Amino acid sequence: MQSREDEIKYCEEHGIHLPFEADSSYSRDRNLWHISHEGLELEDPSNAPNYDHLLVLGVSPEKAPDTAEELSIGFEKGVPVSLNGKKMKVSEIITALNEMGGRNGIGIIDIVENRVVGMKSRGVYETPGGTILMEAHKQLEELISDRDTFAFKKIVGARFADVVYEGKWFTPLREALQAFIVSTEEYMTGECRMKLYKGNIIKQGTVSPYSLYSESLASFTTGELYDHHDAEGFINLFGLSLKVRAMKRAAAENNE
Amino acid sequence: MQSREDEIKYCEEHGIHLPFEADSSYSRDRNLWHISHEGLELEDPSNAPNYDHLLVLGVSPEKAPDTAEELSIGFEKGVPVSLNGKKMKVSEIITALNEMGGRNGIGIIDIVENRVVGMKSRGVYETPGGTILMEAHKQLEELISDRDTFAFKKIVGARFADVVYEGKWFTPLREALQAFIVSTEEYMTGECRMKLYKGNIIKQGTVSPYSLYSESLASFTTGELYDHHDAEGFINLFGLSLKVRAMKRAAAENNE
Amino acid sequence: MQSREDEIKYCEEHGIHLPFEADSSYSRDRNLWHISHEGLELEDPSNAPNYDHLLVLGVSPEKAPDTAEELSIGFEKGVPVSLNGKKMKVSEIITALNEMGGRNGIGIIDIVENRVVGMKSRGVYETPGGTILMEAHKQLEELISDRDTFAFKKIVGARFADVVYEGKWFTPLREALQAFIVSTEEYMTGECRMKLYKGNIIKQGTVSPYSLYSESLASFTTGELYDHHDAEGFINLFGLSLKVRAMKRAAAENNE
Amino acid sequence: MQSREDEIKYCEEHGIHLPFEADSSYSRDRNLWHISHEGLELEDPSNAPNYDHLLVLGVSPEKAPDTAEELSIGFEKGVPVSLNGKKMKVSEIITALNEMGGRNGIGIIDIVENRVVGMKSRGVYETPGGTILMEAHKQLEELISDRDTFAFKKIVGARFADVVYEGKWFTPLREALQAFIVSTEEYMTGECRMKLYKGNIIKQGTVSPYSLYSESLASFTTGELYDHHDAEGFINLFGLSLKVRAMKRAAAENNE
Repeated sequence: MQSREDEIKYCEEHGIHLPFEADSSYSRDRNLWHISHEGLELEDPSNAPNYDHLLVLGVSPEKAPDTAEELSIGFEKGVPVSLNGKKMKVSEIITALNEMGGRNGIGIIDIVENRVVGMKSRGVYETPGGTILMEAHKQLEELISDRDTFAFKKIVGARFADVVYEGKWFTPLREALQAFIVSTEEYMTGECRMKLYKGNIIKQGTVSPYSLYSESLASFTTGELYDHHDAEGFINLFGLSLKVRAMKRAAAENNE
Repeated sequence: MQSREDEIKYCEEHGIHLPFEADSSYSRDRNLWHISHEGLELEDPSNAPNYDHLLVLGVSPEKAPDTAEELSIGFEKGVPVSLNGKKMKVSEIITALNEMGGRNGIGIIDIVENRVVGMKSRGVYETPGGTILMEAHKQLEELISDRDTFAFKKIVGARFADVVYEGKWFTPLREALQAFIVSTEEYMTGECRMKLYKGNIIKQGTVSPYSLYSESLASFTTGELYDHHDAEGFINLFGLSLKVRAMKRAAAENNE
Repeated sequence: MQSREDEIKYCEEHGIHLPFEADSSYSRDRNLWHISHEGLELEDPSNAPNYDHLLVLGVSPEKAPDTAEELSIGFEKGVPVSLNGKKMKVSEIITALNEMGGRNGIGIIDIVENRVVGMKSRGVYETPGGTILMEAHKQLEELISDRDTFAFKKIVGARFADVVYEGKWFTPLREALQAFIVSTEEYMTGECRMKLYKGNIIKQGTVSPYSLYSESLASFTTGELYDHHDAEGFINLFGLSLKVRAMKRAAAENNE
Repeated sequence: MQSREDEIKYCEEHGIHLPFEADSSYSRDRNLWHISHEGLELEDPSNAPNYDHLLVLGVSPEKAPDTAEELSIGFEKGVPVSLNGKKMKVSEIITALNEMGGRNGIGIIDIVENRVVGMKSRGVYETPGGTILMEAHKQLEELISDRDTFAFKKIVGARFADVVYEGKWFTPLREALQAFIVSTEEYMTGECRMKLYKGNIIKQGTVSPYSLYSESLASFTTGELYDHHDAEGFINLFGLSLKVRAMKRAAAENNE
């Protein structure tokens, strides 16, 4: 057998009933976190997906309701613990967000991806709950994570995603990357509010006891923590190597 | 003077007319690529932005039209060269996309960012044209860029963004990062179609003469390029170090 | 006061005795891990260091003994726990290695470094014990760490070094990077033998119960874990995207 | 045939003469840049290499002459162009350095490496010329490259090495990484002096018209480019997010 089509044909010839039509069905995988769709019109990346036929967990933005739906998610140490103020298990939160997100057209991803074995593949993913959780968690990080940590976590996060995609869960690298992430989650506690509206997640404000945001600093108001004169010294030294470089280069060019 | 408020007060007292109201105006910066808004209700990250008052380049998704708008963008070596099939300068394309995107609620970003000088700051950015171009370019990369290049470009792209954010344009690092990117753009030529609908950019298909997508490979059909038996050898070696590790660890534990 | 010279002059004028000569002394910092030297002939990077005058912890390779000195270091979970088979505290091991390394010309580093505040600085460091421990630990990693982990740890290690150099020890990023490293050290247990000879650390063999090295695999002998035919499938898929790329590019060029 | 031993036996049985003894020969590969040795005692990583038997390009540090040999290498845009003041082709420089380095015990590397196909392998490499060139080039970079570029080039360089090791030379990623490196080499012009002594490369000073080193800055002498007061502002802002974090955390803990 050389292909999925061969396998379907074999089943038909041997009286094995399949719960889908061979000609009109996508190849699908599903779990709590997502459903993926491949095949049919998606096999040509120049085609738009036929969302009316394809979607399972929800509807397209165009079919979503005309009024927004508000929600809030509570996190403790990076883990979602409540939805709209009600304590729930993570799996319950995902299930509820899949429903809310799905009906509001959230989390539909049309992507050409790079399989580990070297070929490209085009698929549509629905992951409404995952998309909302990622967005909410990112709001919290913006408030709590400092500049250095935020920048390096991008590198760690991208590598983590690759390692998982490659099926390398039970590896020392996955464990070490996760140890990094768990450490950064220590203070990711707070509450994120947002509106779901026809495919959009619209932020409605975030609060955290560990927020590094300071209103007086943000407005550059001179006070206990900040003095305008500090900026002069900072800028002088932040750009010092550039100034030296320009002088040295000019001198070198004059000597030529 | 300790703050923006002090400066505004000074102007008022000295008869200097300012083109905005002190109490009801955001602090704004604008260029071809974007407009940023800070101040007023945004100074408290727990507040939702007052988009009806705030937006300048466009409208919120909720105020956008009920019907989608289609468009296509052509790229040559990574540079946008045409809109809806018509050749245009990059600046004209951005201007046109700012209008199309703006009226469809695209590219509104509500963010708490980390200033270089160490404080957090909350702002809303409108960058409709930039958002559409980024999304279109990413579609092209998905089709053309191989797995290794795509992964490393994430690291390079994030560093490039940081360097520019830090005002370090005229530096050797910016030049070297850009040389990397220019090299990866060599074959980023093609056409991306999409629909704009109430804040969503919905992909409608992408074509490129340099696409690495192969329909027969994508469906794992055995043929000239792919043989099912290759996968067995690949998987055996891809996971070899994990197998050795498990065996060695088991042996070590038995010896204890 | 504008410089170190001003400070020394001030002390002399006010009868403050300094334990060094103003004209013939390096500026030095010292702790258990290292001693650094700056100033005098080092201030011009085109000068060779005057090692006979400069060194404190040991001698130059040219002054070291003509016979090698053997040693072995034992590690448990990445931490050095024994020297030549004798259990010792880490601080005792460093002290002993500083002496052994110092007398054999190990760990002399002549470097132009980039200070955080933007200027370059030239110094000579002596860190004999640290150099030996780093080399021994690396031997262990070569044996125990898999390819993926080893590669990513280079990025983490370089960032860790920068964070510490910048004085950012009490930061979330340092904690998270360290969590990554601690995780990778879980199985770094074993014994490294080496010879010290006139500036050289010459490896004499390493053993670990968690070694991933397999003699039968290393010689590509077909057996339980490895089959020559696996390589064919692996290579076909490892290079698949390159093959597709070449075909697509040739086709695109034929169509031009 | 399952192994190299089988192949050698087959040759013997069929009257094919091999230019080495089956029992006493290492498996070797050689080109201008290096020679590698595998097999025999090296197959057990707990063994020390038998350098008297093994080395081909040179001698061990212990067999090297008792007097140091001086040399200088000139670079233009990162490319070695002269040896001891004499213009030479790169290949001639490598050949000459292989001889000079080899006879002084330079560039002997005993390593357990991670093959792409998943197994560990132990080998000894001799690369005397390569080792000297790498060290000389690094001296130049220390003088010319700024802090940001130096740090990111570590990541790029490590990835470049991996890509080449994986045999992925003819790939877009190799081309893009090289474009980055070529850009950073633009000003890598200068002269490096060093001594070779029994395995050591001892720096004797480096000069470049594009050096960013400034003697007055290095000694923190207040002057045109540097003012001691700048440091205060720099430090205040460099650590601002840490100060905010400490205050916020203390406040959060008081509220609990």
